[in-house]
Amino acid sequence: MNAIVLLTDFGLADAYVAQMKGVLLSEAPDIPVVDLTHEVEPQNVAQASFLLATTLPHFPEGAVFCCVVDPGVGTDRRLVCAASRGRICLAPDNGLLSLVLEQDPNARTYDLTRFARRRPDTCATFHGRDIFAPLSARLARGSSPDSIGSRIDRNELVTLEPSRATADGDAVDCHVLHVDRFGNAILSLPVEPWNETLGAWPSVSLHGSEPGPAVRVSSYAELGRQSLIHVATYAELASGQAGILAGSQGFMEIAMNGVSAAQQLGLHPGGQIRLSSTSACGTGSK
Amino acid sequence: MNAIVLLTDFGLADAYVAQMKGVLLSEAPDIPVVDLTHEVEPQNVAQASFLLATTLPHFPEGAVFCCVVDPGVGTDRRLVCAASRGRICLAPDNGLLSLVLEQDPNARTYDLTRFARRRPDTCATFHGRDIFAPLSARLARGSSPDSIGSRIDRNELVTLEPSRATADGDAVDCHVLHVDRFGNAILSLPVEPWNETLGAWPSVSLHGSEPGPAVRVSSYAELGRQSLIHVATYAELASGQAGILAGSQGFMEIAMNGVSAAQQLGLHPGGQIRLSSTSACGTGSK
Amino acid sequence: MNAIVLLTDFGLADAYVAQMKGVLLSEAPDIPVVDLTHEVEPQNVAQASFLLATTLPHFPEGAVFCCVVDPGVGTDRRLVCAASRGRICLAPDNGLLSLVLEQDPNARTYDLTRFARRRPDTCATFHGRDIFAPLSARLARGSSPDSIGSRIDRNELVTLEPSRATADGDAVDCHVLHVDRFGNAILSLPVEPWNETLGAWPSVSLHGSEPGPAVRVSSYAELGRQSLIHVATYAELASGQAGILAGSQGFMEIAMNGVSAAQQLGLHPGGQIRLSSTSACGTGSK
Repeated sequence: MNAIVLLTDFGLADAYVAQMKGVLLSEAPDIPVVDLTHEVEPQNVAQASFLLATTLPHFPEGAVFCCVVDPGVGTDRRLVCAASRGRICLAPDNGLLSLVLEQDPNARTYDLTRFARRRPDTCATFHGRDIFAPLSARLARGSSPDSIGSRIDRNELVTLEPSRATADGDAVDCHVLHVDRFGNAILSLPVEPWNETLGAWPSVSLHGSEPGPAVRVSSYAELGRQSLIHVATYAELASGQAGILAGSQGFMEIAMNGVSAAQQLGLHPGGQIRLSSTSACGTGSK
Repeated sequence: MNAIVLLTDFGLADAYVAQMKGVLLSEAPDIPVVDLTHEVEPQNVAQASFLLATTLPHFPEGAVFCCVVDPGVGTDRRLVCAASRGRICLAPDNGLLSLVLEQDPNARTYDLTRFARRRPDTCATFHGRDIFAPLSARLARGSSPDSIGSRIDRNELVTLEPSRATADGDAVDCHVLHVDRFGNAILSLPVEPWNETLGAWPSVSLHGSEPGPAVRVSSYAELGRQSLIHVATYAELASGQAGILAGSQGFMEIAMNGVSAAQQLGLHPGGQIRLSSTSACGTGSK
Repeated sequence: MNAIVLLTDFGLADAYVAQMKGVLLSEAPDIPVVDLTHEVEPQNVAQASFLLATTLPHFPEGAVFCCVVDPGVGTDRRLVCAASRGRICLAPDNGLLSLVLEQDPNARTYDLTRFARRRPDTCATFHGRDIFAPLSARLARGSSPDSIGSRIDRNELVTLEPSRATADGDAVDCHVLHVDRFGNAILSLPVEPWNETLGAWPSVSLHGSEPGPAVRVSSYAELGRQSLIHVATYAELASGQAGILAGSQGFMEIAMNGVSAAQQLGLHPGGQIRLSSTSACGTGSK
């Protein structure tokens, strides 16, 4: 099932997304177009990388992901694509494909810059409409990346800092990959094996978060070590209780019921945290 | 005309809606998918109930409404559906179908929880993608609710407090069902018969609203009884004038021209108000 | 390629856009529907006029633009349409078509109010759903504007103040047409001929902007004359540097790299500015 999936930081208030869709209507009128999201924070490549990798497996094979978070638009940054698990992801070469590549050692990577060079009259400030959209249409209509550009080694691509989970006995260091609309903080801990590991710990303590705007500073010391309950569903958490659970995006999540865990616990995308099974570095004993 | 209509509180900044659409592309590739809205306030079941009931009649028969505002996701709350006026509405059993049932005494109701039980490996935190989407696809492709689950009495469903309009001579008590982007406050007074009734009153007074942020507290007493002009269109209201008119959602609306009536008059969803034709309970005479 | 493109100020949190799409599913089930945007500032006709005119050429011929920014809904304002470059734009007669007409001297204009008059039972407060949607469906299915209404002279339409670019030797007076999500300020200076003209100036100075919230008032005098670098891409600008470039919407843009030029320089839609090639009216010498 072919489809074109759009991921940008253009927002929905301007006409930029619509103009891409106008081009797609001309160049691939029979192929469905789906919005992944256009609300990526402007120029936040890491956020786009997370959203792409976690969404890719939920679309049918044949889908083409057209990803335009592109601070370097119009410069000589390359146009690259990854073929992963039957889907194709097209992006500027700025790290946006990092998490897809990290999750799929068999992904093949291509340099498609040649396609752009053949369009010298293109507007230098909006390749999403003038380059990415027609190229996505061509890929979705069945052209192979080989026929448009050339295969390159994945190590030639720009990459973001890899997602990490550094285990050390009864503790693990990781970071926050994403905070969602509900304030759930998604961690760089894959559900497999971490849901089972954390579930076996007698208790889970969270270290290193910072108090958010809703938290009084006087409670900072206490928040330095926050106890988390290991649960299976959000509804198991009582009001005000913080928990950790296997999230739907393939990673462990810190959540609270009815309020934003990220805001209450001071968790931000990119923030470093430690989970421990005992009070190894707290200010008091448990 | 089959179609799948999505109503959630997921927002559009995360990938959750897109992941549902990816599943729908796989399971019902030929059926159009339309967004009702994804901006329901997180976990606000009453708001979703209003948006569903007012939108249902504007879609063709055969439409399947897939409604996921689901604080109890992963718990043993049931999965239910209502067949109303040729459309099907699928939702968790938390009151979301209340206004649809209230407006259609002939609606049939079903328990479809069995469908979820057959998928034990499902992610416990995202039934929208893993249960509601494939089930909606199956209903939209023509399976009857009977063949998937079993018919139940409508009284077995969880219901919200019903929308009310309690008339008492020349006054009526009601509440605010919804406030829209323009600040129009939609009341629990059906256009039929209330547009004619209110239009026949010599004057309409509004009691019980609270001053909003744009209103000085010193003016509260005055706002305790606000005069409303009965009009047919927004444009008939002069600047700063508050009116009441037959709204497009089937209910009477309080509106102002060019500014938010809700903000100016302190009207909030769920808020109780009284309309009277004379100064029955004001602080002064008219 | 027929398509219906929707442009409204309804936002996406209410059900209004979905209700229009429900009607379109009934009346033109095979014609794709694309959102231009629904985030036009409430009742901002000038913003809608800009978004329509800049997007029109990027959709295939045959597209029908259904534009509903309509403060006068339900009054006797006319329903008009413009046929321009193979596309059709339908709107209330309030100036929304101004920029399309300004850019196309050959556009033909029609009064389609007759269509609305034939529907006397229509809800007076939501013509988007009850008049514009079914009329758009009819146009997209192939009915000509002639067969629905009657041709009128373009001078009979309500028009907004035209976009201006008044050149005076080595200076030009213009205004801000639009500010986008990234804070780029799009000017009423068509790329052709202004990109070449400004590129030939030894320097470009911006006069008349006002300090935005992020700018201290003490720096106002300095901002009274801001130097702009003429570049081809956003990435050529160093951090904090303001530039002017040929934008993707057909007009010159003032931009900064990574921050909002509009906020930093106090540029607002509709605001008047002057660009000069020398310090003709600055407070100091360059």
